[in-house]
Amino acid sequence: MLKGHQTWVFENKPVLISSAAVGGPFEGQGALSDDFDLLHEDIWLGQDSFEKAEKKLMEDACEIAIRKGGMKKEDIQFFLSGDLMNQIISSSFTARTLGVPFLGLFGACSSAMEGLAIAAQLVDSGFADNALAAASSHNAAAEKQFRYPTEYGAQKPPTAQWTVTGAGAGLVSKQGNGPRITSATIGRVIDMGLSDPFNMGGAMAPAAVDTLQQHLHDLNIHPSHYDLIATGDLGKVGHQIAGDLLSEHGFNIPSNVLTDCGLLIYKKHQPVFSGGSGCGCSATVTYGHFMNRMRRGELKRILVVATGALMSPMSYQQKESIPCIAHAVSFEI
Amino acid sequence: MLKGHQTWVFENKPVLISSAAVGGPFEGQGALSDDFDLLHEDIWLGQDSFEKAEKKLMEDACEIAIRKGGMKKEDIQFFLSGDLMNQIISSSFTARTLGVPFLGLFGACSSAMEGLAIAAQLVDSGFADNALAAASSHNAAAEKQFRYPTEYGAQKPPTAQWTVTGAGAGLVSKQGNGPRITSATIGRVIDMGLSDPFNMGGAMAPAAVDTLQQHLHDLNIHPSHYDLIATGDLGKVGHQIAGDLLSEHGFNIPSNVLTDCGLLIYKKHQPVFSGGSGCGCSATVTYGHFMNRMRRGELKRILVVATGALMSPMSYQQKESIPCIAHAVSFEI
Repeated sequence: MLKGHQTWVFENKPVLISSAAVGGPFEGQGALSDDFDLLHEDIWLGQDSFEKAEKKLMEDACEIAIRKGGMKKEDIQFFLSGDLMNQIISSSFTARTLGVPFLGLFGACSSAMEGLAIAAQLVDSGFADNALAAASSHNAAAEKQFRYPTEYGAQKPPTAQWTVTGAGAGLVSKQGNGPRITSATIGRVIDMGLSDPFNMGGAMAPAAVDTLQQHLHDLNIHPSHYDLIATGDLGKVGHQIAGDLLSEHGFNIPSNVLTDCGLLIYKKHQPVFSGGSGCGCSATVTYGHFMNRMRRGELKRILVVATGALMSPMSYQQKESIPCIAHAVSFEI
Repeated sequence: MLKGHQTWVFENKPVLISSAAVGGPFEGQGALSDDFDLLHEDIWLGQDSFEKAEKKLMEDACEIAIRKGGMKKEDIQFFLSGDLMNQIISSSFTARTLGVPFLGLFGACSSAMEGLAIAAQLVDSGFADNALAAASSHNAAAEKQFRYPTEYGAQKPPTAQWTVTGAGAGLVSKQGNGPRITSATIGRVIDMGLSDPFNMGGAMAPAAVDTLQQHLHDLNIHPSHYDLIATGDLGKVGHQIAGDLLSEHGFNIPSNVLTDCGLLIYKKHQPVFSGGSGCGCSATVTYGHFMNRMRRGELKRILVVATGALMSPMSYQQKESIPCIAHAVSFEI
């Protein structure tokens, strides 16, 4: 059911019956290492390319989520997935492995919540019994494609972010035990004219704020409705901007409520500049850390506002600014 | 409502209240030139890059579809779109222009029907009143990204296909006049081990057949249910293979029923090798030619099986085979 302009309210409250987070070695040294289902010590994951390593991350996350949900892949009706690789090859090749009907998505780093929103919508409306959503990123694959191969040792400014090597997957079902998905807000593209690919957090912050405000407006609720509101990968710079923008608009959300996946995933001493980013950032933090906290009863109601910068190296070279988007999904237990 | 494993049946039969097809100069010389709403004589569309030209094609198609539907962009609740460009920049930048909540998709050349399937599902289930689906491709932008800049004059084998310069958009609504969308079958990835990017039609044919067979099975219907069954962009080579595979499986579909958008769009003397391809191929032929034929009463029930090759230049260089997919949407008037 549609409420307001951009928000879907799921009357049947589909259940996230299981989820999985898989990471690389750097994530294993991070602040949330206990929340990963699987941590690889080898950034290559035994593959001969970083692209194949990313596919393996996603295959692992999907396999674990399906197993934790007590299902077989034959039980999954639809697989919804996106990633940062050109032509989303991580998702497409994982879909080949799974053999499940596949809806490929691209929302850059918002892909995790874009996929989960549609999966929940399909289950809520009775168009699916079980749907699997996933998203992934790999630091070295993303650096190579979007910037420079990491072997070049290129310098970065402090506003830059560190692409998470990780994949998250969530299995949505009509019934079962687990956090329930209560609503989703589909974002529109916001572009404030920023064009610096080393300051994605700053570019994406207005999109996160726009979607969050629309969500609150559509549902006629206050931020205090949630125990936690987490943006996807704004990092330190973008998080500060988002907080300032929200204050200007009359929303003073306490710092123990408003957080960012890119701020949570790594330890302070890790050299990640402004924080974590990539499709794998909000995917692993949501499907690992947040869902674990909900299952333990530490959080009752949360909202994840995954952010995405919808540019390409080509659009940057052609001096376009960065169109940004954010999709929000709410959970309760 | 879900029927069978992969097919959504739309009980409320959402209406395609309007659609638009926009093309380039080569399409203007093609067999279906009368079915385009707008034909550009300049392959650059007045822009300074082929990528920006492709965005303009899509913006044009969306604007025309919205206008023909008697709406304003503010009336559109969701925009679902995909294209072939890295990070689907044609779609994302068009979403920026429209300012409508955006679900970015990637299904390669199947994107047109992937977007339309989800748009129809959202409207059918009451999660949207009006949703716009679009897809685009540009010959020179695609050649540059996937193969060689056209200025190089690289030779091609006869199995190669010609990427359509065009964009199509369709506006789906709860009520109104126009062809009704009755069902959609979401495809799974089929990979028969082919790895030749100059024979996409051959690689994609088994995926088209798989989705078509699943569609017939799920709905328990015979191909004769349809006046026309059109695959997306198999071209001569893939069309022949698809026909052979269907015959082997007991489906002898008459040649006046089973066709392919890539065979229809150009004239015989145009040097397009095996036929047309690209997201813009099934998008323009469906939203232009087929919908015009339906509105004229020449076709009552049709099925469009849009095909996609989910590879990237990187996956090809890493010697991966080509995962293929097809999504089908049925229309009736």
